[in-house]
Amino acid sequence: MEAFSDGVFAVAITRLALDLKPGEGSTLGEQLTARSAVAHYAAYVVSFLVIGIIWVNHHGLFHHVGRVDRPLLFLNLLLLLFVVAIPFPTAVLAEYVTEGGANSHAAAAAYSLTMVGMALSFGALWIWAVHAPGLLAERVDPAAARATVVRFTAGNLAYLALVGVAFVSAPLTLAGHFLLAVYYVFNRLPDPS
Amino acid sequence: MEAFSDGVFAVAITRLALDLKPGEGSTLGEQLTARSAVAHYAAYVVSFLVIGIIWVNHHGLFHHVGRVDRPLLFLNLLLLLFVVAIPFPTAVLAEYVTEGGANSHAAAAAYSLTMVGMALSFGALWIWAVHAPGLLAERVDPAAARATVVRFTAGNLAYLALVGVAFVSAPLTLAGHFLLAVYYVFNRLPDPS
Amino acid sequence: MEAFSDGVFAVAITRLALDLKPGEGSTLGEQLTARSAVAHYAAYVVSFLVIGIIWVNHHGLFHHVGRVDRPLLFLNLLLLLFVVAIPFPTAVLAEYVTEGGANSHAAAAAYSLTMVGMALSFGALWIWAVHAPGLLAERVDPAAARATVVRFTAGNLAYLALVGVAFVSAPLTLAGHFLLAVYYVFNRLPDPS
Amino acid sequence: MEAFSDGVFAVAITRLALDLKPGEGSTLGEQLTARSAVAHYAAYVVSFLVIGIIWVNHHGLFHHVGRVDRPLLFLNLLLLLFVVAIPFPTAVLAEYVTEGGANSHAAAAAYSLTMVGMALSFGALWIWAVHAPGLLAERVDPAAARATVVRFTAGNLAYLALVGVAFVSAPLTLAGHFLLAVYYVFNRLPDPS
Repeated sequence: MEAFSDGVFAVAITRLALDLKPGEGSTLGEQLTARSAVAHYAAYVVSFLVIGIIWVNHHGLFHHVGRVDRPLLFLNLLLLLFVVAIPFPTAVLAEYVTEGGANSHAAAAAYSLTMVGMALSFGALWIWAVHAPGLLAERVDPAAARATVVRFTAGNLAYLALVGVAFVSAPLTLAGHFLLAVYYVFNRLPDPS
Repeated sequence: MEAFSDGVFAVAITRLALDLKPGEGSTLGEQLTARSAVAHYAAYVVSFLVIGIIWVNHHGLFHHVGRVDRPLLFLNLLLLLFVVAIPFPTAVLAEYVTEGGANSHAAAAAYSLTMVGMALSFGALWIWAVHAPGLLAERVDPAAARATVVRFTAGNLAYLALVGVAFVSAPLTLAGHFLLAVYYVFNRLPDPS
Repeated sequence: MEAFSDGVFAVAITRLALDLKPGEGSTLGEQLTARSAVAHYAAYVVSFLVIGIIWVNHHGLFHHVGRVDRPLLFLNLLLLLFVVAIPFPTAVLAEYVTEGGANSHAAAAAYSLTMVGMALSFGALWIWAVHAPGLLAERVDPAAARATVVRFTAGNLAYLALVGVAFVSAPLTLAGHFLLAVYYVFNRLPDPS
Repeated sequence: MEAFSDGVFAVAITRLALDLKPGEGSTLGEQLTARSAVAHYAAYVVSFLVIGIIWVNHHGLFHHVGRVDRPLLFLNLLLLLFVVAIPFPTAVLAEYVTEGGANSHAAAAAYSLTMVGMALSFGALWIWAVHAPGLLAERVDPAAARATVVRFTAGNLAYLALVGVAFVSAPLTLAGHFLLAVYYVFNRLPDPS
């Protein structure tokens, strides 16, 4: 399952670059440094980091799993369904983030909602791994593992808050996702083993 | 062979997201929630699940295979040929499913026929693995393995029935493929070992 | 090296499906069964088979290699460069094969020349593996391995002949590549071990 | 981490071929051999080689690493972020390299700057692996490893020089990147073990 998931993460993260493109301008130099082009670069960097971090945490999670059952398989597919979809709201947000107004808010909300869906399915994956009998690897302490579920819920609240931020400012929403991703880079998920 | 097949499944499943796009509407909010956009989301989810399940069953199948010969290799390429093609009828069905009439029926029929081709080549792969001498892993009981072929044929009949449903209703066809995929998530293929 | 090459083969083969598209016609049913659509399906099937076979033979080759040096690495990149490029002449051939005349001949020649380049770099890879000291795995008989080089040259001649056929008929060229691929499916490369 | 990185390299290198396309001309033969088409082929070959070499050196680097910490993970994501972006400046350079003038210089500068970013993050990855305590594999001599950092800096200077060359001539810049890649094919990174 991990080889397939790794492949999906790798393709999804690479797919992000398909939406890099020059902005408006009379010379190529202007087009490559236009505000709309920079918006695409910024959205690319943030989503790249987000997918990169999910992948790292996905590995962390499966490091604690000793046996895979059918519901876990299904929840993993659900997580990948959101991961693979990320380039779509990324492209939409990149297109509208500099525009301001209702369209930029809708784009930012779509982006944040995709992340909420991703975070919820990641949380469900972990909750199932922790609570279904016999899935955790032997070296993992089940009580400690169950205690980490609270932490996951906190992460989901941050994503939910960014849905609210979307209706205030699209650039702020993008910045929020960037900061959240950087936070997750340097704060390893709790290790219950 | 499994590493290559895994890679192909991973890319094909990720490729589905390339066809996600906003629908018609005067604001981005309307475009992202338009009926035509929702049709693309639904087609994405169904095909994602279908490819995900084929991948899971593909692993299950090769878990029982101990040795690979040339015809098996060829049948595996044939299966992958259908898997890789799935995003094409998916995009076509997403485009026409909400339109109704002859075009939506043609789109749904193309979708169902691709699945029939996929199911037939999967069945042929299994039949060859079971009947060719010396391909099954030692721990597998050949008679039990041969008995499972009937089950595969039943699955094919469900896909064939969905070709018929295509000429009644395209949305119903999509729903049928969704239900069939969910059924396969929770009903493991028979394990003859 | 094989994991990376496997990934490249998997993505290149999946990339072929990006060029599947409906042809001309007043209804979707006509578009999906138009001559130009069928040309795209046929080109897809042939190139899928060609890349599939190269991948199989690539594995066969590296099964005989025990140590990789820098020139072998470079020749492998050269082979992958042609493999990754295959979807481009495939799309061009699919576009022009039914048109007839000079354009279809140019398309077929581009297709055949890409295959010549691929076959030549595959041959160079094998010749280097066989002749450079210390690259073959220990169980491989160097004299027997060297004797197989003639067989590779014969395959190259078939591809060269298909460059000539391109100027006679584009559909015939496509059929020739199909037959050559099927031939390679069932005729394993010589095993010098 | 290497399986994921391998996947990313494989997809990024394959993605380059998406930008291969015919140039201007009244016949397909002319379009396929037009100066603008040849520019696309040349840009494809150079970037293919560049990504191929980074991948080889990436493997060489991680061969010396025995343990991965969070900053190393983050620096690896940063490197991949530049690798995945390479097809974008490649497409831009291919489009403008034959045009001459300010646009071709901007395109060549964007291409060289992407390579500088890639080289800097590769250098940072190596410097961190060498200087952070306990990351190098046991068989590696830390003093020898630290001594190789100078060599990395030299490579970065070559990429920086090509930013300067961009403002002289775009084709010369492309040729420079080609020569640098070929140099790296045959000159293995220093092996401090």
